[in-house]
Amino acid sequence: MTDYHPGLDGVIATESSISDIDGKKGILSYRGYSIEELAEKSTFEETAFLLLTGELPTPDELATFTSMVNARRDLSPGYISLLKSLPKNSNPMDVIQLGVSALGSFYPIHFDAEKLKANDYDKNYFIEVSAGILGSIGSIVAAWNRVKNNKEYIPADSNMSYAENFMHMLDDSIKVTPLINRIIDATLILHAEHTINASTFTAMVTSSTLANPAQVIASAIGSLSGPLHGGANQKVILMLDEMGSKENAVSWLENRLQKKQVVWGMGHREYSTKDPRANILTKMVQDLFKEQSGKVSEMFEAAMALEKACEEKLSKKGVYANVDFYSGILYKEIGIPVDLFTALFAISRTSGWLAHWIEQVGNNKIFRPTQIYKGYKPRAYKKNQ
Amino acid sequence: MTDYHPGLDGVIATESSISDIDGKKGILSYRGYSIEELAEKSTFEETAFLLLTGELPTPDELATFTSMVNARRDLSPGYISLLKSLPKNSNPMDVIQLGVSALGSFYPIHFDAEKLKANDYDKNYFIEVSAGILGSIGSIVAAWNRVKNNKEYIPADSNMSYAENFMHMLDDSIKVTPLINRIIDATLILHAEHTINASTFTAMVTSSTLANPAQVIASAIGSLSGPLHGGANQKVILMLDEMGSKENAVSWLENRLQKKQVVWGMGHREYSTKDPRANILTKMVQDLFKEQSGKVSEMFEAAMALEKACEEKLSKKGVYANVDFYSGILYKEIGIPVDLFTALFAISRTSGWLAHWIEQVGNNKIFRPTQIYKGYKPRAYKKNQ
Repeated sequence: MTDYHPGLDGVIATESSISDIDGKKGILSYRGYSIEELAEKSTFEETAFLLLTGELPTPDELATFTSMVNARRDLSPGYISLLKSLPKNSNPMDVIQLGVSALGSFYPIHFDAEKLKANDYDKNYFIEVSAGILGSIGSIVAAWNRVKNNKEYIPADSNMSYAENFMHMLDDSIKVTPLINRIIDATLILHAEHTINASTFTAMVTSSTLANPAQVIASAIGSLSGPLHGGANQKVILMLDEMGSKENAVSWLENRLQKKQVVWGMGHREYSTKDPRANILTKMVQDLFKEQSGKVSEMFEAAMALEKACEEKLSKKGVYANVDFYSGILYKEIGIPVDLFTALFAISRTSGWLAHWIEQVGNNKIFRPTQIYKGYKPRAYKKNQ
Repeated sequence: MTDYHPGLDGVIATESSISDIDGKKGILSYRGYSIEELAEKSTFEETAFLLLTGELPTPDELATFTSMVNARRDLSPGYISLLKSLPKNSNPMDVIQLGVSALGSFYPIHFDAEKLKANDYDKNYFIEVSAGILGSIGSIVAAWNRVKNNKEYIPADSNMSYAENFMHMLDDSIKVTPLINRIIDATLILHAEHTINASTFTAMVTSSTLANPAQVIASAIGSLSGPLHGGANQKVILMLDEMGSKENAVSWLENRLQKKQVVWGMGHREYSTKDPRANILTKMVQDLFKEQSGKVSEMFEAAMALEKACEEKLSKKGVYANVDFYSGILYKEIGIPVDLFTALFAISRTSGWLAHWIEQVGNNKIFRPTQIYKGYKPRAYKKNQ
């Protein structure tokens, strides 16, 4: 019997080969490749393949994988009817949880415990199942945005990359420049995996019962929907709205710290330096403003002022802007609805969750930790009058 | 840093006051009350209140709680449209996962992290939210059974108990005798809670992100849907079908053990004696056969022969019939479709999951365990040719 660590803080829950964080040096790597190199040189499709299989794809492997993903980007009329049956004011995270759960009904996945035991599933099986879920989830988010706004479903364009097609299906009135395409692709890469946090752990626990992978990903989305986990990039925008112009940054921050309120998008428990993902996005924010208007927006100026104020107040404590701070600003400027930011995170992280599903079922033991019982001693039943 | 225990076996994940198991003595208690006493003297509504709050309700408290549950037993036409939009051959566990996830859309639950922090939620808040989900989940299973069979939705009957109303909404051609009503009620009580297994742990991890409770329960259902967790009582029936008549029991068992195949419904990792829940059901099986036909069915005779053969072969190893062995037989004889057995388990366990949700958010720390990284050392990005 080990000691009790609330939240299993510091407790080893798995051996894993998927990603690694060196928080002191500010390094995040997927399968040995640094996130900086992947964001610069890879695509989301390639990175997803890397996460799922452990290796970068050959051109043939990438073509096959991409065609499997693309084959599932269009949603069937029956599936769109499901989305149309939902109240229009539904929380998008609730919609994608149930939407992914429903994939198992509309696009059955055969995952059988006996076959797994007999090693009947090869690498290609896991790639194909994962490609299907990945292909669908982006379209679920995009299609929901159409349905809730009473707009027509936009079919997938088979000539487009994952990132470009997502923007196309989301809102074809947004002009997707090569830079915007690259920013979406990069944020999908940057959010794809981040070792064992609550949602990935949920995916692992659910995987360990040999549940169907659609049910596994739906469970993980439930965890990500919690305000202590996902959602920080949405809150950055709401916070910046509340703060107002850059002149307010210092006094607003002081007030916020005094009240012991969270400053969203600042600090990350895993990093004592600046989040490496944030570094990558800083440059993209600047490029985007240059391209879009030749000058930065008021919100961006306010964000920069807040980051500067935070650095002065908090950087001695190792608190710097994290990935959510910049991804929120980027998504806002690109024109993605704020209430979809966490859903974009979920699209990306689905690749990491699926990698953990494959790893878990490949060397499985069902998760059943124990408890310290602190409740009543045995007592006799007696109706309470 | 602690040692690595795969599946977190033996690792303390929480302090909890909800239920306790003494596996050597064969005792399971909820909030201090033995499962035997609860199955005999309590109702599902009362037991659910006990699990949620820690105490048996006063008559007034029970009346209020029951009326809250009953108020949510009818599903809206919009919600029924959602079920009708699903393919008829959907897996019922997939349907209830997405169905519970959708409760957050059709019946919004306001659960706000800031309010929780400020202690703005009292005991009544948690009771009401839990009552709503509990009221709905039974009706989701029953309504799905109607929809998939192209039958009309049967509205809830406000004069009926939870158990009786469930049977009524499921199939009003089944004659629910007082004994059948009591058997359904007892199985709902017996499956309601069982310390920290994979689905309850999933509920805890998802709760720890402060996700909405509908999303929490949907995540837990994902875990329960896995064949290593829920589903054993369905497999008992399929296994007995395959085995055939009682004469085959001994040879069938020997063959099964030789091939190292699972004997479903036998043994439970938590108990070295007979599962106390199985003891309670044994008597009910006998009563049911007496009432229904005056004699036992062939399947029951085969089941008894198999249990006897298992006792001879396996009881020295502490392997006895468990709760799934008998609940499967009971449900089958009552006329509940076999593919709904795990869904009935989920209805019942929702009360336990909600108790863990309340306990978790009442003293929360987000679950973020750690990993041993076993993957590639840093390597430079190079396209794979």
